Amino acid sequence: MTTLFEKIINGDIPCHRVYEDEFVLAFLDVAPLSRGHTLVIPKEPVAHVHDLSEQSGAALGSALVKVAAAVVEATGATAYNILQNNGEEAHQAVDHVHFHIIPKLGDKGLVLKWDPEELVDGEALASEITAYM
Amino acid sequence: MTTLFEKIINGDIPCHRVYEDEFVLAFLDVAPLSRGHTLVIPKEPVAHVHDLSEQSGAALGSALVKVAAAVVEATGATAYNILQNNGEEAHQAVDHVHFHIIPKLGDKGLVLKWDPEELVDGEALASEITAYM
Repeated sequence: MTTLFEKIINGDIPCHRVYEDEFVLAFLDVAPLSRGHTLVIPKEPVAHVHDLSEQSGAALGSALVKVAAAVVEATGATAYNILQNNGEEAHQAVDHVHFHIIPKLGDKGLVLKWDPEELVDGEALASEITAYM
Repeated sequence: MTTLFEKIINGDIPCHRVYEDEFVLAFLDVAPLSRGHTLVIPKEPVAHVHDLSEQSGAALGSALVKVAAAVVEATGATAYNILQNNGEEAHQAVDHVHFHIIPKLGDKGLVLKWDPEELVDGEALASEITAYM
């Protein structure tokens, strides 16, 4: 099943491109939360960050720096969020990895609810995670 | 001014470490939104993504893939968000770049409000951003 973003990468659907290299494409979100809301996606067609090759991961990380810098310059934003959603419950709408760069401009931008708890079993949990690394 | 995260990198303050390489450190958030909430930070002491070296950006992108995969395995989460905040208005609390990996586990995890608009001047805006690349 070809996703919307694969069609954009292949040029079958147009986009407002702001950056492209061998591994990455960046373009404006057509339903922005604020002016300059940009998507940075890998050309590798996978749904989740944990499915990416390390090469795509590295290329995305390096592209985020470049694209964020240009978005900040062009919009004059002094604050912004980078958000990437994996899975429908986490609000992923297209099954192809995409990082949102969302300028915070007045009341426009990303709105979060932050309801933290206390870390109770840090030592054990860190060991569990490390075991899968 | 030394931030909390620099003190963690230097070993002056302990953390529940899950991953470390030459450029990156990852450890459990002590105030998690959900089980497995992990921070991935560069060793380079800069506040915002657009201030990072490309080398740190690439190392972070590649580490996100590895750490996300291990967090997914260890927690059994089928969905998660990656979030990185720049600037106080965007909810940045420590002035050292940090990517949150936040598993979505039932009602625990990141809660977002998404209020999009329509992209009206895409062509012109894309050109403005590209001019700074």
